[in-house]
Amino acid sequence: MYLETIYSPADVKKLDMAQLRCLAAEMREALLQKISVCGGHFGSNFGMIEATIALHYVFESPQDKIVFDVSHQSYGHKMLTGRKDAYLDPARYSSVSGYTCPAESEHDFFNIGHTSTSISLACGLAKGRDALGGRENVIAVIGDGALCGGEAWEGLNNAWELHSNFIVVLNDNQIAIADNHGGLYRHLQDLRDSDGKAECNLFRAMGYEYLFVKDGNDVEALVDAFTRVRDADHAVLVHICTVKGKGYAYAEADKEDWHWKHPFHIENGLSKSSRVGPPTYDDVGRDLLLEKMKNDPGVITIVAGVPGAIRFTPQIRRQLGGQCVDVGVSEEHAVAMAAGIARRGGKPVFVTDCSFFQRTFDQISQEVCINDLPVTLLVRNASVLGMNDITHLGIFDIPLLSNIPNLVYLAPTNKQEYLAMLDWSLEQTGHPVAIRIPKGAMREAAGPVDSDYSVLDRYQMTARGDQVAILALGTFYGLGEQILAGLQQTLGISGTLINPRYITGLDREMLQELQKDHKLVVTLEDGILDGGFGEKIARYYGSTGMRTMHFGLKKEFLDRYDAQEILQANHLTASQAVQDIAACLATI
Amino acid sequence: MYLETIYSPADVKKLDMAQLRCLAAEMREALLQKISVCGGHFGSNFGMIEATIALHYVFESPQDKIVFDVSHQSYGHKMLTGRKDAYLDPARYSSVSGYTCPAESEHDFFNIGHTSTSISLACGLAKGRDALGGRENVIAVIGDGALCGGEAWEGLNNAWELHSNFIVVLNDNQIAIADNHGGLYRHLQDLRDSDGKAECNLFRAMGYEYLFVKDGNDVEALVDAFTRVRDADHAVLVHICTVKGKGYAYAEADKEDWHWKHPFHIENGLSKSSRVGPPTYDDVGRDLLLEKMKNDPGVITIVAGVPGAIRFTPQIRRQLGGQCVDVGVSEEHAVAMAAGIARRGGKPVFVTDCSFFQRTFDQISQEVCINDLPVTLLVRNASVLGMNDITHLGIFDIPLLSNIPNLVYLAPTNKQEYLAMLDWSLEQTGHPVAIRIPKGAMREAAGPVDSDYSVLDRYQMTARGDQVAILALGTFYGLGEQILAGLQQTLGISGTLINPRYITGLDREMLQELQKDHKLVVTLEDGILDGGFGEKIARYYGSTGMRTMHFGLKKEFLDRYDAQEILQANHLTASQAVQDIAACLATI
Repeated sequence: MYLETIYSPADVKKLDMAQLRCLAAEMREALLQKISVCGGHFGSNFGMIEATIALHYVFESPQDKIVFDVSHQSYGHKMLTGRKDAYLDPARYSSVSGYTCPAESEHDFFNIGHTSTSISLACGLAKGRDALGGRENVIAVIGDGALCGGEAWEGLNNAWELHSNFIVVLNDNQIAIADNHGGLYRHLQDLRDSDGKAECNLFRAMGYEYLFVKDGNDVEALVDAFTRVRDADHAVLVHICTVKGKGYAYAEADKEDWHWKHPFHIENGLSKSSRVGPPTYDDVGRDLLLEKMKNDPGVITIVAGVPGAIRFTPQIRRQLGGQCVDVGVSEEHAVAMAAGIARRGGKPVFVTDCSFFQRTFDQISQEVCINDLPVTLLVRNASVLGMNDITHLGIFDIPLLSNIPNLVYLAPTNKQEYLAMLDWSLEQTGHPVAIRIPKGAMREAAGPVDSDYSVLDRYQMTARGDQVAILALGTFYGLGEQILAGLQQTLGISGTLINPRYITGLDREMLQELQKDHKLVVTLEDGILDGGFGEKIARYYGSTGMRTMHFGLKKEFLDRYDAQEILQANHLTASQAVQDIAACLATI
Repeated sequence: MYLETIYSPADVKKLDMAQLRCLAAEMREALLQKISVCGGHFGSNFGMIEATIALHYVFESPQDKIVFDVSHQSYGHKMLTGRKDAYLDPARYSSVSGYTCPAESEHDFFNIGHTSTSISLACGLAKGRDALGGRENVIAVIGDGALCGGEAWEGLNNAWELHSNFIVVLNDNQIAIADNHGGLYRHLQDLRDSDGKAECNLFRAMGYEYLFVKDGNDVEALVDAFTRVRDADHAVLVHICTVKGKGYAYAEADKEDWHWKHPFHIENGLSKSSRVGPPTYDDVGRDLLLEKMKNDPGVITIVAGVPGAIRFTPQIRRQLGGQCVDVGVSEEHAVAMAAGIARRGGKPVFVTDCSFFQRTFDQISQEVCINDLPVTLLVRNASVLGMNDITHLGIFDIPLLSNIPNLVYLAPTNKQEYLAMLDWSLEQTGHPVAIRIPKGAMREAAGPVDSDYSVLDRYQMTARGDQVAILALGTFYGLGEQILAGLQQTLGISGTLINPRYITGLDREMLQELQKDHKLVVTLEDGILDGGFGEKIARYYGSTGMRTMHFGLKKEFLDRYDAQEILQANHLTASQAVQDIAACLATI
């Protein structure tokens, strides 16, 4: 077995072409075993095996610097750079992250997880090299799906200006997470169809030397191409055509399904865990959207490369036709386009994961909110219970979104409330509305929920007591109920419980009324405290005698954490909170 | 005179070609008179006169919808759509904004001021039209300088997928605010050099029908081209070559200087107000940067299309060579590139206006802050005293930036402190640092300032009193001094004054110590209160007996405001604040 002998890229260079092909097979086998147990990005890694081998065969990492876009395709790179045991030894499977990580290896230059960044990051490495007199190669690896992202375009445009060594490897597997969309892909097809010989070539037109590798899973052809561009003194783009999921028939046959795969049975490709569970907020949100779209051609759902965010399967998307727009990883365009649709009288909904809303702050603020257009934004995975990779955290959205004028940011606490808010948002024309989709097991409403949210910033008092009032936002409403019960049990206090519903404004009337017979107001929010909801309450009461306490997360980048541990560390369990409240009450 | 007879685009259509040429001359004359008095975007408007006439001659606005990118070139459009008096009658000069504005006219569809948005917005209008069964033309006007922006690329890619009427007018005047940069511009030159006949054509490659108008200041040629594409059932791009500043020799000769022009003498083009005033924070910051760059090739300044933000004249840029990188309006790339430079051991500085940092939140958070790289961000015009157009406000940066982990956001209060912080930031390697450049008349330090800011979150107490402590952030430090004096005069209170310096963290030790002999802590910040600095202080003291008051701006979009009025409205004058503090103290 060759893979077991690879401790660094130097060991790759010792092998001949036939041995490299064996190595590729061994790497696929190791990946298959590991992903079948742990889950992970399947298709991109299987497709990039030969290119990864060839890169490390030709270049001298870490002196030569390879930057992987998103870096979800870097599993093979990790195997060849001293981390093979994380793929060969089940006991060490969790010793590496799913993305490049400088803390793991000198061969990794950035923690990356968002799309379309590699060219710009590599351009910076090259610029630094040139300024400091270095001579190494700098290589940006980017997929076809990421090339439509604006940041990639900006980088591609500017990197040419380096007039020095800069190598882009365009890994064209003809698909993003789902299908590619847009005129760029028409052009990439022209290039593929002509074996790279088309007279019109975007990359050449922009000043890049251009090489085409028809079979990007042929290690020898790749070694040849990379050898030709090594030490180039100008910008080069190597266009390699690979097969996503290469080498595992099920993955090759259904590339979208195998983009990211949960643990599965190797023999038949079937998932180990049954996917049939109780319906989730994603499911019921999708169902309502589908119903609305069916009844109203003006309702248009926009996704940015991740249609799974709203559970739109390929079949659903086909049925929806033009009412579902997948813009590719183009969040900026998605939001600006939504503004345009709303301006024309349509009812646009843009849905994506919390972390990706960060990519389009300016469009939300300028195109949507300054123009006060009725755009609906569905913010998914906004929770400490959401994705837990450092690059995909869902705990920063409240400071990001809730401080933009005109935006109404809603935090539903259960299924019926979520659906009522979504329905209302689609039918109202007053303001842009963002909805923080709850996370965790879906809750049912205890009673009727409002259908009209147009009178802004009206909190809902669900239990009226005295002394202590708990404002429990969104997903943490359940925690609020537990704390309320805990206060009763432990301290004999019948407190007040409030579902604030609106993140973006204060119910001054209710807050003022609390001053009559409460001495402490407690806020709970499922995100960082800095810039968040609780601080607005703290400011409101600052000049009064009311005491306030604020439970939420510390401002920090977490990585691959255990949610329960983090909740505990931030005193976000009912028993801890009750204890803290008791301690505070003792000082008043 | 024709212009006086134009009450709507219908009146444009009554004129023949010779008359349209006269109209163009009259429009230029009106613009010349107005801008010479009021200042404004000169070059783009002069260049776009014929195209604007031709658009309104051929299309049926407002049913047909024209979206102007940035909309800084929409002065001519306003003249032809019922707003001529705002250009002909000096008494009405201020009756229109410098950008499109739906509140002014049904011919304006969006408040716009940021770059590269028109294609995406127009794509949304077209998508809405198609969904709702409309048949109008949708036209996006965009400049060559804006085309390198990522959002424009995302829109260009996706709009083709409409497969319906969509017209892009690319106004290629061969310059942005300053020179264009990047491989795209090499390609545009190929297209111009070949009169649009180059075999390789990016736009055709992406599926667009392509028309080339060699003289984009020839109204007849433009009318012909627009007539050919009117009612197209697919995506079309009309590439028109115009002369920025066309028709005024001084502006044609120095296009960068005449991009935006202060009031000037028509006869010689000289500015009416002498530019020689006392040095500003921009000047001294530039001088320090130049010195650092001269002594250290690793110091690299990045600008994104607005080199004026750091007062880098064309001459300075030529001298700096590769140490100054103008990436064009590509803020995302600028920040990601800075991350790469820092990772390679360089010392990158990215400087732009506050409002444009909104365009790159994700890159700051992900590429820079997750990787904790020593990038310096200079945040300019972050103040209520900054730009006052609704699209360029500098009052939202504290919630945006100060809640990102790892980022150190500093608020200097005077010249020496600003320079010391900038110097320190460039030489340290611990964290990313953003500096909120003070605004207003430059202040000198009263005493020595620290040179080392690496022990984070240490506030500076500049006057120790009791009862009331004032935390006066950045530009509002002077206001803090006035309030301190007012408290003494009015209430006989010798308060405490603190320069917090760090926006991103709390000096818990100092805050705790204040509890000994203070009963009220007051915060002052030059930005919106929501998600800002004061709220962090409010949260800190929430559970204690300390009262807090927070002075800053209300969360709202302001437009073309008088700063003094806004300060007054937000109780941000010393006398108002002293009165409010007295009222609060009376309740304690």
